[in-house]
This record gives sequence, structure tokens and C-alpha cells, in this order.
Amino acid sequence: MTYRTIRTSILLIALATWPLLASAGFTLKQMSPETKACVACHKLESAALYEQWGSSKHFRANVGCYECHMADKNEPDAYEHQGQIISTIVSPKDCARCHEHEVQEFNSSHHAKAARILGSLDNVLAEVVEGNRGMKTAAFPHGVSAAAVNGCWQCHGSEVKLLENKRPDPVTWPNTGIGRINPDGTEGSCTACHGRHEFSAAQARTPDTCGKCHMGPDHPQIEIYNESKHGIAYHANVDKMNLNNEKWIVGEDYSAAPTCATCHMSATKTQPVTHDVGMRISWNNRPEISVRPEISDAKLGLPGKDVTWQKRREGMTDVCINCHNKNFVESFYVQYDSLIDLYHNKFAKPGLSLYEAAGPLLRPAKFSNKIDFTWYEIWHHEGRRARHGASMMGPDYTHWHGTYEVAKHFYSEYIPELQDLVDHNSNSTDPAKKAAAEKLSKKLDEVLSNSDHSWYNNKLDPAEQALRDQQRKEFQQRYSK
Amino acid sequence: MTYRTIRTSILLIALATWPLLASAGFTLKQMSPETKACVACHKLESAALYEQWGSSKHFRANVGCYECHMADKNEPDAYEHQGQIISTIVSPKDCARCHEHEVQEFNSSHHAKAARILGSLDNVLAEVVEGNRGMKTAAFPHGVSAAAVNGCWQCHGSEVKLLENKRPDPVTWPNTGIGRINPDGTEGSCTACHGRHEFSAAQARTPDTCGKCHMGPDHPQIEIYNESKHGIAYHANVDKMNLNNEKWIVGEDYSAAPTCATCHMSATKTQPVTHDVGMRISWNNRPEISVRPEISDAKLGLPGKDVTWQKRREGMTDVCINCHNKNFVESFYVQYDSLIDLYHNKFAKPGLSLYEAAGPLLRPAKFSNKIDFTWYEIWHHEGRRARHGASMMGPDYTHWHGTYEVAKHFYSEYIPELQDLVDHNSNSTDPAKKAAAEKLSKKLDEVLSNSDHSWYNNKLDPAEQALRDQQRKEFQQRYSK
Amino acid sequence: MTYRTIRTSILLIALATWPLLASAGFTLKQMSPETKACVACHKLESAALYEQWGSSKHFRANVGCYECHMADKNEPDAYEHQGQIISTIVSPKDCARCHEHEVQEFNSSHHAKAARILGSLDNVLAEVVEGNRGMKTAAFPHGVSAAAVNGCWQCHGSEVKLLENKRPDPVTWPNTGIGRINPDGTEGSCTACHGRHEFSAAQARTPDTCGKCHMGPDHPQIEIYNESKHGIAYHANVDKMNLNNEKWIVGEDYSAAPTCATCHMSATKTQPVTHDVGMRISWNNRPEISVRPEISDAKLGLPGKDVTWQKRREGMTDVCINCHNKNFVESFYVQYDSLIDLYHNKFAKPGLSLYEAAGPLLRPAKFSNKIDFTWYEIWHHEGRRARHGASMMGPDYTHWHGTYEVAKHFYSEYIPELQDLVDHNSNSTDPAKKAAAEKLSKKLDEVLSNSDHSWYNNKLDPAEQALRDQQRKEFQQRYSK
Repeated sequence: MTYRTIRTSILLIALATWPLLASAGFTLKQMSPETKACVACHKLESAALYEQWGSSKHFRANVGCYECHMADKNEPDAYEHQGQIISTIVSPKDCARCHEHEVQEFNSSHHAKAARILGSLDNVLAEVVEGNRGMKTAAFPHGVSAAAVNGCWQCHGSEVKLLENKRPDPVTWPNTGIGRINPDGTEGSCTACHGRHEFSAAQARTPDTCGKCHMGPDHPQIEIYNESKHGIAYHANVDKMNLNNEKWIVGEDYSAAPTCATCHMSATKTQPVTHDVGMRISWNNRPEISVRPEISDAKLGLPGKDVTWQKRREGMTDVCINCHNKNFVESFYVQYDSLIDLYHNKFAKPGLSLYEAAGPLLRPAKFSNKIDFTWYEIWHHEGRRARHGASMMGPDYTHWHGTYEVAKHFYSEYIPELQDLVDHNSNSTDPAKKAAAEKLSKKLDEVLSNSDHSWYNNKLDPAEQALRDQQRKEFQQRYSK
Repeated sequence: MTYRTIRTSILLIALATWPLLASAGFTLKQMSPETKACVACHKLESAALYEQWGSSKHFRANVGCYECHMADKNEPDAYEHQGQIISTIVSPKDCARCHEHEVQEFNSSHHAKAARILGSLDNVLAEVVEGNRGMKTAAFPHGVSAAAVNGCWQCHGSEVKLLENKRPDPVTWPNTGIGRINPDGTEGSCTACHGRHEFSAAQARTPDTCGKCHMGPDHPQIEIYNESKHGIAYHANVDKMNLNNEKWIVGEDYSAAPTCATCHMSATKTQPVTHDVGMRISWNNRPEISVRPEISDAKLGLPGKDVTWQKRREGMTDVCINCHNKNFVESFYVQYDSLIDLYHNKFAKPGLSLYEAAGPLLRPAKFSNKIDFTWYEIWHHEGRRARHGASMMGPDYTHWHGTYEVAKHFYSEYIPELQDLVDHNSNSTDPAKKAAAEKLSKKLDEVLSNSDHSWYNNKLDPAEQALRDQQRKEFQQRYSK
Repeated sequence: MTYRTIRTSILLIALATWPLLASAGFTLKQMSPETKACVACHKLESAALYEQWGSSKHFRANVGCYECHMADKNEPDAYEHQGQIISTIVSPKDCARCHEHEVQEFNSSHHAKAARILGSLDNVLAEVVEGNRGMKTAAFPHGVSAAAVNGCWQCHGSEVKLLENKRPDPVTWPNTGIGRINPDGTEGSCTACHGRHEFSAAQARTPDTCGKCHMGPDHPQIEIYNESKHGIAYHANVDKMNLNNEKWIVGEDYSAAPTCATCHMSATKTQPVTHDVGMRISWNNRPEISVRPEISDAKLGLPGKDVTWQKRREGMTDVCINCHNKNFVESFYVQYDSLIDLYHNKFAKPGLSLYEAAGPLLRPAKFSNKIDFTWYEIWHHEGRRARHGASMMGPDYTHWHGTYEVAKHFYSEYIPELQDLVDHNSNSTDPAKKAAAEKLSKKLDEVLSNSDHSWYNNKLDPAEQALRDQQRKEFQQRYSK
């Protein structure tokens, strides 16, 4: 019996007994000889990595390097390394050998599908507008955009391609994007949140983990959280958060503050933890016009298509209720929904129809017109900030980073740019342009004469003016009290 | 004797003996039967809220749900809940039953008056420019702007209106804005800083608490603090800050770093803690042109009108002196005051007079001209960032987020936009416009020929040019050393 | 023997025995009588300062006020204070009395030369564009810009000037800029990172320390770090970072996360700690077009001119390898370098040559043209953010704050502004302008017909179009799975 045969036999036995071990709490009786072999070198070569693993639960359960990185030689990314068949990437399928339930939940989530944007509109930005095909590697002979590689794909996930030696191509690796498309066909990357090589639940419960991707001009969730009372309470009470506890039920194991996980994923007394992050949200604020989450789940063919927003809102309310009474929560939702309505009715819907009307007057390549960026930022950046700000009670993001910017750009950039298009084309010799200019002009008049916008042409409704004059008087009285 | 009569009697006794209890340190001998009744349900229904209270000083003093939420049935927002008369909102008047002194100080502060902006200019933004009347509720049949509700009011405070059932209308609740106008007529919200339901002084001493509202493009105090040496020292030494100590005197109870509270509110060896946050500032940097705090206090009829800025600066110096010597502090103020002078003389005063001169040439509705936003952001956003940045020694906020942005927009947007107004109106057939264009043109020439701005037309004073040439030579020598 | 003579004798003895003491570990046998005299007053006057020192290693080594602030009466900034000759500023030369090695390393770094920008382009911004000569003091009778004093100099360092009484002039003090030019001719300020008066190594190891200056729109290193997995792991594990340990070797003394210091300065098992922060970087991303660090070291006459970027990258790799395998690190560098290439080839090089071609058509004073700011921000703000973002794996800074903004401003501002210059000057009666307009127009055509930019005029190469159509199809298939 060669060493190799012994190793294979051990592996087969290990795999055969896996279900048994798993049901015994994912622990192995002792460290495998393969892992011992890995450790012998790597504790010297990658000392900090070894220590991280040494402080993980995996270590205590004798789940080591080999248990996660082992591969069947027929797997596409399997290669021999120091006599063992392993793969670089540990995919959700690998994690599911022990964490089946979590992976299943994750697979039902938008998170798992995050790399499917490859080829979408935002992708045109990173590939064509910002990028070129200058990054050429073995797996990408036509080249790919370094802006996509270093930007988009690091959060959304790359579609991993392999080199001849079965190592991942540098275009697609390093990558821990949450929707990574792995060589084994699975989607996702557990280490996006459970950072290597401690894989700590505690860290995944900290808001910063989510902030890796949920930050910045177009989705500043972490900034909003940090502004909110939730974030303030968290930072002031992080020592009381019991983040390392196995069981982490709000109102039982901690009470001082909620993190992102608390509200969107973690257990309450009546709800189990879930790895499908969309299950408690009642709006998907990604598109120009917010949609209910069951609609966007249906688009991706996810099982969430059958879970109504009302049902999800009940789930979230069940979290809120640990610190707030029902009346408070219901009133909060009245406020939040109203902000969505305002954004939709005053800006998103008319803005979108104006943009469509402007289409025939624009240079054909998307983003080769200034107004393409103007409209894009109104909905994709500023409009989202307002909606996300309201959803998590961060008033400065709702207003100063949100509706203020939306309104500023709507009136001081978008409307004048549209008017310019009308002016430059209303006498066009091209009858199609002339007609489009007329149509756009009519649409503009229609929008600006609506009561939401009539102030702009100084045509406030007299009843409204009277109401406002009265408020102003009240203000002056208050101020001079 | 019915249960209700018993309860009322207990309440009357409690209220009668209150001053006695208060002077004994705000403690009650035992938990009241009313609070026990509240807890019986709420410890199940709102477990985390119950735990927060359980870790508060209120708990140890037997100050429970009822002691704060109890109401007289004649109070406007009193309602019966499970046999007890309570109100949802605990106003400063309620808190003052024990914390009279703190509430009194708070009442003298700008904080308490923060909701008086309702009806002001910024309010026009949120209500008319960004908003509409789409949010209609029982108490607001004419509708109100969701941008104001979710934005402005969450920091400034709402004017709470009640539903028929005496619960607050969702337009005005949830709301913890610091100047909230309560149903009992009081102004303020103690929970703005002392977060429910632990009401912790420690949390109120953390900078994040202030950052709830003092953040963002127009008043980034928390960002500046975090950049400053004060913030760096705080984050590195938070464990040594002794934040939970009852007595919290800088130089006695902690020495590692100051928080916002340390400088603006908390005790020194010679000054008591104060809840009037304006008592140690020597500039109010809110308006276009900064004013001394006694002036802005006088406008609001606050007692601070009699406290000069010099007196307040002495108060602040008394804090600084714990870590810095007097010469350092005085020199700091020379630097800070110089930045204010620069901003005033070079940008704010000429900018304001140019804006006034442009008035007759603008579309009548405020914020329907691009230039309205240009000028507004120069003073309200960027000019404030520069001033606040200098006040707290955050150099990137002073410069890159501050004076750099002010100058960039002054020269690359504001001046050209004003010049455009001149160009478009100097041959106007409307004699009023023609005259206004001439006046604005003259004003523009006057500003641009001033030595602060003559560089713009490449007309640097020869003496100045000689000085600069010499500096440049020195730079080149230094650089090539 | 007078007291004064005794004091002087003690000082002479102390100085004479200094080398001995230093080699004995920098400790003095007992507190000096001079320091005792300082402390007698200052523990009352500056209690927190006294406590900070009391918790420092200096205290345990009997290194007190006098040991650092003592001065020879012939030193330019020496003055008598309560019978002792001292100086306000403790310069690197003073620190080098004990910490010679660290100061020597620091002196070889860019950090030490940071004040040499005085007189440079950015300085024109702060002095002329943003500033005036309104801040006049004894040492600056011609006046100086408060924007430079409160902004630039607080990070870069001031050139300290003295008053007649030998105290520093308020224009130049307070100042802890890292390249401060001190009265004794030395460059640098150790307290820039080792904050007074604890001088803690632990604090200097926290990322916030670096964030004092490395933040904001033009060099957001701290923001990028906080977004990155490195920052997330740090914030989640700060308790395990062993920051106060004397020895601080990654993989031995801590393993949970790296801070800025870990990667750029601190020890590994095979590399010693260094105070020359540039020794492990392989790109200097400051200029329009990134250069190798040995080139920029040569410009400043620094010894680093002889250390190639490859050598430095090996040094950094030696850090990375503690947590990542070699393939990971090499692939990361492929990604990072590709982003630099993309930025260079698509935007920086053509952008720069277009700006040069536009020169003769611009108003002569730099920054009196809008386009001066447009181009400046493309490279100095946004282009740096993209490069820094990629260097530290912060995808939102690389993309949304970086390449997205670069591309947006390149196509929606810069190109149209250049086209406007062509249009306004192509029929100029000034033959020089006419010729320059023709040249610029030709250059513009050349750039826009390059395959990197041909999309803008809707002239995508057919082969490229075919590739993109295929990707789009793949996207739609994926999306509808």
C-alpha cells in the first residue's frame, strides 16, 4: 500500500462517515494526517493564518486545512500539492459538507446571485466607459477591464477561470465577492462575510463586515447605520453585545443594540437565524423605482417570489418589537413608506419618463451625454441614499445626502439640460428630432405644471401659498418668542 | 376601595413625597406597583427594552416605566393603557421631576430651540423644493413633506400632534429631535442624547452620540473630530476613558482624550458640567457670516445673550489647559480666528453682496436658479466645513473639504454664473434688468480687482508677485537639497 | 554654590553620562530635580498632561519634562522658564538623544520632507486661490494665508518662526505636521504619530493615527482601509491585537488583522520595524502618472533612490505571506498593476497631453479656468482614489469613488470643455490661438478615435461589439436561470 493509497482510503472513510460526524456536531475525533501535513509547513510559512485557524471553532472540531481544501481529482480546479489533491477555492458546496442548511438559505438569496450583473448596465460602465481590454492573462486573451476586476467583481464576485495548472487566473482571483461563480458551478463565497481563516460568527455579526460592500455613494448602508441611533448604541456598548456567544438571540443574549445582522438575519425568540438576507425587507430600493422584494426575487427565480412584503415586514417587526412598541414600529413604517412615495411621485416617475422622451435627442452611446450621468446619479446614487436613509433612520443621509441632492440635481441640472435639448432641436432639419423635441417640450411642461413642481416657475397654487404664509408666520412667532 | 382608587392614592403619595425622595438621591425605596404591572407584560413583549432599563441607573433607583410615563388625565397626551393613565412621550418636564437642574440648563440652550426652524429657509427646501404634501394623516389633512419628516425633523424635532386616541400622529412620531415641541408645550427631547431605555451618561459622553446630527456635508463635526488628534487619542484609549464613572472630571477621572462632551459640556476641576452646549464656544458658525454666540442667543431670547464670547472662550480655555499650555491655546485661537477672517473677507462678504446684486436678474422662486445652489453650498456646506474644521483642528476638513471647495466653486462656478447673468441682461429691453446688470457688473469688477481676487485676472500686485517668486525659489532650493 | 550652579552641574553630569544611560535601555536611575520642579506646578496646571506622561514608558524610565524640553542657551528657541533653560519644541534631534536609530530611519523617509511642498503648486492653491495675506503676526509682517496655516501645514508641517521671546509664532504653532521644519534646522515631528504626552507606540499602531492626514477626497487611505477586509478584521478583533506589547511581530505577537503600521512599518519574523514608511511600496501614486518610489526618492535626494520597487515589493510580500499564500499575493499585484496601467493609458497620459495642448487657449492664471479644476480633480482626487483603492483592496473606493468619477468627469466635463475651447478659438483672429485650437482639435480626434475611447462616438470596433454582444447574451441567460 503506497502512501497515496492510504491517503485516499482515509479520505474515502472520512467522506463515508461524514454524515455521522456532522450530526455529531461537525466535530472530528482527531486532526487528520493530511491537515497535519499542511500545518507542518504552513505554521512556519503563514504563521498568522495558522494562528487565525488556531483561534477558530474549526480548530477545536479538528476541521483543518485539508477538510476544507480537499478535492476530488476530477474536480475542475483540483491539483496536486505536496502529494495531496486540493483546490484553492473553498466553495459553498465545500462548506455545505457541514453547513448544509446555511448554504441552502444563502443559495435562495440575492447575495448568491450577485455576480449575475456581469454583462448588465453597470458592467458597461466598468468595462467600456471606465475600462479597456488592457488586462490580458492566460484565461483572458481578449483582455478585460481592470476597473471591473478591482472594483465591481470584488463585491459582486468574479466568474473564476482556471489556468492550466488549475490555479485560478489572476483576473478572477483574489476574489471574495459574495456571488462568485466558482469552478464547481456553485455561486457564492462564504468568506465574503466569514473572513478567512477564523470564519468567525462574531465578526460576521459586526456591522463593518456588511460595510465591505454596503458603503459609498450609491449604497451607504454602513454610513447610515453608523449615523443612526442603532449604530450609536452599538459603538457605545460593543462590550455588552456578547458577539462571541453561540446562541445570539436578541432580548436573550444581548439587548444593548442591534447590528445589521440582528435585524436582517439573526434569531429572535420567535424567528430562527436566516442566511437569506432579503427575508425581512419590504422594499427593494435598488432600481429607479423601488419594487417589492417578491417581485425582484421572481425575476431571479428565487423561492422568495412566494413571500410577500407584508410577510417580510412582519418578520422585521418581530425584531423591532424587542426594543420598540408596536405603535412606534407601525408609525416608523408610515414615515418610511411616505418617503418612498415622495421620491417615486415627485422625482423617479417623471424623471424616468423625461429621460425616455429625451432619448431620440441624445448621442447614441449611453454615458456619452452629460445628462446620462445626471439622471443616473439622481436615481442610482442620491435617490437610493434617500430611500436607504429613511429605511434605517439616518436623517442626514435621507435629507442632505439624499432628497436635497436629488432635488438640487433635478432642478439645477436635469431640467435645464432637458430644456437645452429642446432648444437645440426644436428647429432641427431632421423631422424626427424636431418631433422628439416637441414631445419632450410638452412632457416638460406637463411635469413642471404639476403641483409638485409648479413652485419652480413661481406658480404655487394660491391655497398652498396661503398655507405656507401661515406656517411662515407661525415660524416667526416661534422664533421671536 | 377599588384598585383604581388605590393606584391613584399611591400615585398621590408618591408625588407628594417626591421632593423628599429626590433630595435623597432620586431613589425610591421599592418598585412601584404600577411599574411592576408594566414590567409583567413588557419583559416578555419588549425583552431588550426591559434589559436596557435593567442595566440603567433608573432600575437601581426603582425608577421604572410608570415613574416616567405616568400622566395626569388632564394632560393633552394622556390615555388609559391597561388601567393606568400614561403618555407615550416623556418630555423634559417629566424628566425635570428628578433632573430639574439639567433640564433648566438645557432649556437655555440652542438645542432646546432646534425645532423653531420649522418655516425657515431650510424648511422651504425640504417642504417645497424636495417635498410635496403627499404624506397625509389624521393630524395633517393638508399633507406634509416626507423629506421634512424623515430628514430635518429627526434632528431638529417635530411639533408633535396627537391622534384622537391621544397617541402621537405618525407624521410627528417616532421622533427624538433635540428641539421637539411636545404636547405639554415643552421643547426638547432628553432621549436625543440619553438613548432609551438605558439613558446612559456614558453613551451621551461618546462622540457618536453627537454625530447623530452633527455630521454630513453641512456640519461634519463628527468627521472632523475623528480626523483630529482628539479623536485619534479617544479611539486608541477608549478603555481608559472611564466613561461609566459617576464623576467625570477631566484630569481627575480621565486624561487620555477629550470627547465632544469633555470640551463643550463636562466638568473640569473649576467648572461644573453644563447642559447648555453653547457656553464654551466663541463663534456661531451657522450663518453666512459667523456671529458671536451672545448675538445668536439674543435672537432667540436666551439668557446666553449676557454671556460674552470672551467669557465663553475662557471657559473653553479652562478645558484645553488640562492638556495644553496657555501659549498653545492662545496661539490656536489666533489660527482659528484667522481662518474665520479669511473666509469672511475673501468669500462670505463679497459673495453675499454679489448674490444680493444678482437678485433682480434671477428667476423669482428661490432655488429655481442654479446659482441659488452654488451660493448656498459655498456658505452653508463648504464655508461651514472650513470653519468647523479649523475650530477642531481637522486639517483636511479645513482645507480639502473646506476652503478648497469654497474657492473652487467661487471661481469656477459662482463668478462665471454671475458673469453670465450680466451678459444675458446687459442689453435687456427691460430697463430694470439692464440697470441691475450694470450694477452687478460694476460690483463684479470691484470684487475681482480687490487684492484678494486680482490673481484671477492675472493682475497680481507686483510686490506680491515678487514675494511669491522669492518663496518659489526657496521651495526649489529646499526641494533640491 | 547657588541653586543655579547645582542645577547646571547636574545637567552636565546627566548629559555626560547619557550614552551610558541610553545603552542601559534609556532609563535614568531617578527623576531629575529639574523634572521634579516642572512637575510641581504642571501636575496642578495641566493635570491631564501630567497623567498622560504618568502612563507613558517615559515615566517609568524617569524621562520627564526636562529631559525632553531642556535646551542649551545658544539654541535659537531656548528661553528661561522658572529658572531653567528650555524650548517649546522637542525636535527629532532631541528625541534622537535616546531614539537615534528611529530618527535616522525617519530622516530618510518622504515623511521627513513633507514641508518641502511649501511654495509648490498645491501651495498656490492655499495661498493665492483660497487665501490672502490677512494673517499677520510678528514673524510674518507681510501676512500669510490662514488656509495654509489651518490646512496644509497641519499635516505637512510649518517652517517654525520664533517671536522675540523665543516662543514659536502663532502662524507656525501649534503644529505637529510630520515634516515640520524646526528652529534647530531639523525636519520632522515625532509627535505627529506618537501623540503627546504619552508617546504611545500602541496608539501609533492604530490606523486612526495615520488617518489624521491620510484621509479625505485626495488620499482616502483610512477610508479605504476601513472598507477593506483588513480594516473589518481589525475593528472586530482590536482586543486581540496586542497593541501594547513591546515586541510586535505579525504572526508571533498578533495574527488577527494588520493595521497600516503592520504592512508599512512594523516587524515581521524576517524584517525589522522601520520608520521609513516608503520601504515596502512599489508605486508612488501621488503624481498625475504614478512613478516608482526610487524615482521619487531620488528627486528628494533620499537614500531610497537605491532601493528598487521590486526589492520593496519583496518586503511587502514578506508581510502578506503571514496570512496569504504566495500565489494570492502575486495575483493581487497583477490586479493592482493592471489598474494602474488602465488609469495611465486610458486617462492620465491622454488627459495630460490634452491639458498641455489646451494651455495656450486658457486664461493665464492657473485655476482661473474651470477646466483647471476639472483636470486637477481627475488625477489628484479621483485618479488617486482609484489607485489607492486598488492598492489596499477597497472596491468601492477603486470604482465608485475612483474610476467611475474619473470616467464621468473625463467624458461629461473634460472632453466637452476641451471641445468648447476648440469651438471658441478655431476662428480666432489671433493666429496663435487659431493654431492652438487646430492642434487641440487634432489631439482630441486622435484621443477619441483610439480604441479606449471610440465607444464615445459610438464607433466601437466590430470585433469588440461582437464580444460584448456575446457577453450580454451570457448575462441574460444567467439572469433568467
